[in-house]
Amino acid sequence: MKITREEINQMQKRFRATFMNTLSGYKSVHLVGTRSTFGISNLAPFNSIIHIGSNPPYLGFIARPQTEEHQTLKNIKETGYYTLNHVSEEMLEQAHQCSAKYDANTSEFDATGLTELSSTISVAPYVEQSALKMTLRLVEIIPIPLNGTSMVIGEVQEVLIGDCKIEEDGYAHLDEFNLVASLGLDSYMRVNSLKRIPYAQIK
Amino acid sequence: MKITREEINQMQKRFRATFMNTLSGYKSVHLVGTRSTFGISNLAPFNSIIHIGSNPPYLGFIARPQTEEHQTLKNIKETGYYTLNHVSEEMLEQAHQCSAKYDANTSEFDATGLTELSSTISVAPYVEQSALKMTLRLVEIIPIPLNGTSMVIGEVQEVLIGDCKIEEDGYAHLDEFNLVASLGLDSYMRVNSLKRIPYAQIK
Repeated sequence: MKITREEINQMQKRFRATFMNTLSGYKSVHLVGTRSTFGISNLAPFNSIIHIGSNPPYLGFIARPQTEEHQTLKNIKETGYYTLNHVSEEMLEQAHQCSAKYDANTSEFDATGLTELSSTISVAPYVEQSALKMTLRLVEIIPIPLNGTSMVIGEVQEVLIGDCKIEEDGYAHLDEFNLVASLGLDSYMRVNSLKRIPYAQIK
Repeated sequence: MKITREEINQMQKRFRATFMNTLSGYKSVHLVGTRSTFGISNLAPFNSIIHIGSNPPYLGFIARPQTEEHQTLKNIKETGYYTLNHVSEEMLEQAHQCSAKYDANTSEFDATGLTELSSTISVAPYVEQSALKMTLRLVEIIPIPLNGTSMVIGEVQEVLIGDCKIEEDGYAHLDEFNLVASLGLDSYMRVNSLKRIPYAQIK
């Protein structure tokens, strides 16, 4: 089936949002953990985490235009730190529930029953249930004037990783953690390791 | 296990690159299809495709610093168009092989046996074997001065999608296509649909 740019334009708004969000394919799912200057912890699910570089270790994610409802970006700007907490099947319902529009005085930890784990290096809280957690220090927010979003880039300061095999070459078997992937805005996937393929040489 | 920033700094370079590339989690895998001004088609695998917006439909990806070896970015700048072709299990070995450093006079289609499908709307070639293909028009290249990478943003111009269920709300069942996800630089995953979870309301 061919879908033209004109047909995309004519889609009903919500249909287009759901459809377009599926087209980019599978994503990892993280809870971004932050704390407001009033001390309230916050969790929000994001599926746009990307690798920017290894040395220094940079990760990025796309943040929507800032509004009063979106506490994550505000908290990151004000405190300079956030955590990324990979979402596994066991904590999936609670993680998804963090996308509900709680007000700034409500902690998603309290609302969902996820357990807050204090960090020794920043105010940003970890999610204890997550098997792979990282603290990032905000390095840069790059505006995307095209649609008002922005790319938030952080430098990894600390990694808390559960028991899993880490190969001699640095490959970490995250597949042992039962982490989910997502498709679109509300669909979740189970992931099973298929194979590694050696570095490609010209044949 | 806790890994500090100091310990990341002290990792051997290749170990760190492999390890850090796994930490961001699962990614979708696309072949980016381009054509040089000399008419040579090019394919390169990318795992950093992200959704930027639905209206207009924008997708982005991270490109490494441009060198003579990296024809993708050069071709996109020169012709203004590229395709994204989702990678499925059936074409995985060939897609991975496209990461070998072929010179600018060699088409990865010829080198790997993937089939070039001409587009009616741009010079950028599609991969016939891919069940979900899109043509994008370059809209903006946002430099990331931190490490010399850049974010390439394109607007979706056309979608070619194989037979799959598309729900009334716009959710496309890409899980019917046997698409792979990747972890790190060289590991591939099989993905199975788990569930959709309704829009989260405050309880």
